Amino acid sequence: MKIKNPFFKKNSNILLSDIIKLVKSKPIKKRVKIENICDLLNAKENDISFFNSLKYSNLLSKTKVKYVVTDIKYEKFVSKFCYPIIVENVLKSVASITSLLYPDALNDNIDFSVNSPNEKNYKNVKFGKNVLIGKNVIIGKNSYIGHNTIIESNVKIGSECNIGSNVIIKYSLLGNNVRILDGSIIGKKGFGFFPNEKQNLRYPHIGIVIIQDNVEIGCNNTIDRGSISNTLIGKNTFLDNQVHIAHNVQIGQNCIITAQVGFAGSSVIGNKVLIGGQAGISGHLKIGSNVQIGGGSGVIKNIPDNTKVMGYPAKNLKNFLKENK
Amino acid sequence: MKIKNPFFKKNSNILLSDIIKLVKSKPIKKRVKIENICDLLNAKENDISFFNSLKYSNLLSKTKVKYVVTDIKYEKFVSKFCYPIIVENVLKSVASITSLLYPDALNDNIDFSVNSPNEKNYKNVKFGKNVLIGKNVIIGKNSYIGHNTIIESNVKIGSECNIGSNVIIKYSLLGNNVRILDGSIIGKKGFGFFPNEKQNLRYPHIGIVIIQDNVEIGCNNTIDRGSISNTLIGKNTFLDNQVHIAHNVQIGQNCIITAQVGFAGSSVIGNKVLIGGQAGISGHLKIGSNVQIGGGSGVIKNIPDNTKVMGYPAKNLKNFLKENK
Amino acid sequence: MKIKNPFFKKNSNILLSDIIKLVKSKPIKKRVKIENICDLLNAKENDISFFNSLKYSNLLSKTKVKYVVTDIKYEKFVSKFCYPIIVENVLKSVASITSLLYPDALNDNIDFSVNSPNEKNYKNVKFGKNVLIGKNVIIGKNSYIGHNTIIESNVKIGSECNIGSNVIIKYSLLGNNVRILDGSIIGKKGFGFFPNEKQNLRYPHIGIVIIQDNVEIGCNNTIDRGSISNTLIGKNTFLDNQVHIAHNVQIGQNCIITAQVGFAGSSVIGNKVLIGGQAGISGHLKIGSNVQIGGGSGVIKNIPDNTKVMGYPAKNLKNFLKENK
Repeated sequence: MKIKNPFFKKNSNILLSDIIKLVKSKPIKKRVKIENICDLLNAKENDISFFNSLKYSNLLSKTKVKYVVTDIKYEKFVSKFCYPIIVENVLKSVASITSLLYPDALNDNIDFSVNSPNEKNYKNVKFGKNVLIGKNVIIGKNSYIGHNTIIESNVKIGSECNIGSNVIIKYSLLGNNVRILDGSIIGKKGFGFFPNEKQNLRYPHIGIVIIQDNVEIGCNNTIDRGSISNTLIGKNTFLDNQVHIAHNVQIGQNCIITAQVGFAGSSVIGNKVLIGGQAGISGHLKIGSNVQIGGGSGVIKNIPDNTKVMGYPAKNLKNFLKENK
Repeated sequence: MKIKNPFFKKNSNILLSDIIKLVKSKPIKKRVKIENICDLLNAKENDISFFNSLKYSNLLSKTKVKYVVTDIKYEKFVSKFCYPIIVENVLKSVASITSLLYPDALNDNIDFSVNSPNEKNYKNVKFGKNVLIGKNVIIGKNSYIGHNTIIESNVKIGSECNIGSNVIIKYSLLGNNVRILDGSIIGKKGFGFFPNEKQNLRYPHIGIVIIQDNVEIGCNNTIDRGSISNTLIGKNTFLDNQVHIAHNVQIGQNCIITAQVGFAGSSVIGNKVLIGGQAGISGHLKIGSNVQIGGGSGVIKNIPDNTKVMGYPAKNLKNFLKENK
Repeated sequence: MKIKNPFFKKNSNILLSDIIKLVKSKPIKKRVKIENICDLLNAKENDISFFNSLKYSNLLSKTKVKYVVTDIKYEKFVSKFCYPIIVENVLKSVASITSLLYPDALNDNIDFSVNSPNEKNYKNVKFGKNVLIGKNVIIGKNSYIGHNTIIESNVKIGSECNIGSNVIIKYSLLGNNVRILDGSIIGKKGFGFFPNEKQNLRYPHIGIVIIQDNVEIGCNNTIDRGSISNTLIGKNTFLDNQVHIAHNVQIGQNCIITAQVGFAGSSVIGNKVLIGGQAGISGHLKIGSNVQIGGGSGVIKNIPDNTKVMGYPAKNLKNFLKENK
């Protein structure tokens, strides 16, 4: 799903040659304008993308994008329809290219333009006390915004939504009938950076958080926005309290995620997945649909559809129960 | 312990026949007025209660209530003093009956009636900046309420209490000398609903949170109110930071619960229980008194009095240590 | 590192004989003024310190302090350069002495003196809406303070710092270029007290939180201040969301601590330590430098430098992976 991202101003005059120069790769003669930077799945022909792990070979073989930043050791996996841009450090190069395309994105400061809502602009919205709203925020009819809540510029909230008190929402698009309960923080930059002796290097996060219709997010949750991809919570998925969702995580529809569960970055979760309290899901995993993960589990491998697991590390539920009688 | 619940307006003209019609059970001729809906332990003779798990057979055999909603498979466990109301789905029927008795309870919106405290009504209470107080809130003498804190209507706070900043309290009754530290959210609806393809069905939560004398609740905790029963924190129990307590959990007196511990719904914890950091307690368990649960444990079975356990799943501490030398 | 603590007013007229009387130890004739109470590592000659666990024998053998409160069973470990003050309960005695030296420290109430910042005093600082600042707060140039954030009296924040919204900071000293993200609570009293049948006894926490240059603290974290020692986050260490750090914990430089990790009290962590999500570190441990701790691990023993561990309890990573193939 490709959604227009209203949050970061794109520099639309970037040529492929500018990028190649920036990342110190081998010059190309062709004059091509690069439209955007995007993951392999969502990138269009004239965007630029990147390949940095064999986990994503399948996406590489099917991508529509023509220009792929990668390491010399992965060059052979790039199809003849793509042009590999060989660099020393893929992630650092991607960060530099992102900064070139989105010069303001590295600044992750809070939004100082927020103010009391001008109630004329929000005719069928009920606001609590001390609410702060940024510029160009859209809120659908019959929605409620609780006390002390901050909604930063350009956020979109659908109709019939119910946002609690002390909530912070930034860089996010919410569907209809969404509930975000008290104290949750949605859309903060992900925990991604390059470790560096004196001072770690932050990189821009141009992904956003997309929350689909009928979702409920419990209290004191933290849902980080994506770096290049978006963080997604699918329709009618319910999250309990104190859940943490890292950047780029995609959760399917009709999932039930109980309290204190944590997801590391970039994992993809199917539909109708049930996860018990305090379970943890490692990064870059693929969890199928109709999966049940027992409370306290630590999931460190992909899980196929229709599977029940439990344990640390998580294994088939029957085996876990047999071994722990 | 039966405590008057000042939060939900009860419809006091409900007949047993109205209920039977609502849940499509077999008609009874008798004309009886139903006073309330309540769990088996607390229900009085003319209330209605429910039975949906053999875990609670003991309560069923001793209950004072006459009318029990249950499944056909459990009919034989209902004593001759009770009248079983057989339904297809016990929990959905209970939800419908609760909505009939408490027509406003399904609305779990935040309280928009809160306002700056009228300090005349709270003569010996010290308020921080930007405090918001609902209607009919009672706060005892020599209590402190921190900055930005929200106390919704009908909440009662005892004397000598110390409520931190950025705290949210709703649907709760607090004793004397209670401390609730910064950022905690007390009394939100529990994470209970009926999964449903297009849109999950929420059910009313008419339980509250009861916090007894001398309790301390740490920072950024979440304590959910009960669905039918109440959530209870017993006298002189101390909770550290980032603890999650789900709906209907009852914690005894003099317990020490360290950081990031989580309780799933409806478990009952004895007195003088010590729980190490990040431990998780599954739902509907009975943990005895003088129990010690090691940090990181995952408790999935009942634990008798005077026991030390550790592990995931939790086992006798000696065995855990022997196996992990 | 000894840092001047601006938060608690010290009674500077306490004699050794006053202390000995207070803790009911054997009288000494010498007339000595006691300057301070401090841990063995940081105590100076005329301070008073304490010894209550063989884990700290090494510190006891090297301490500069002359007066050490201890138990009769540890008397033999006290060197001839020290004078042991034998008491029945070391920790209770330390609490009493701390109260004598710092009569206001037991009062852990929130700071009611906070107010809107007088922007004349903070010329190059940008403040969000509804910010509350205590007395004598120092904030360096080019720092940002987010909406609804509370900074209690005497806190020091360096230059180029970025404090998010809904943050609470008390009893803390922050270096330059520090980021504290939304919803975090820094400097609350640790979870330390003496269990007592009717009402637990709190003891004074005179330690503070020290956050060095270039640190990032994620959203909804809780970092408690120390009891006698300070809680320390070393230079360029980054913490993800929902991390809990208990009192007296010392974390080195260049560490990466991912989401939902928890540290029990008084553990000391080296430099360049990587900790995966949801891992827990027990109290009073020593974790070396260049250590990697896998997500979900439960660490209950010291870990030497340059080690990778995983599991619950945590063991050598290779063994964990071999046993869990």
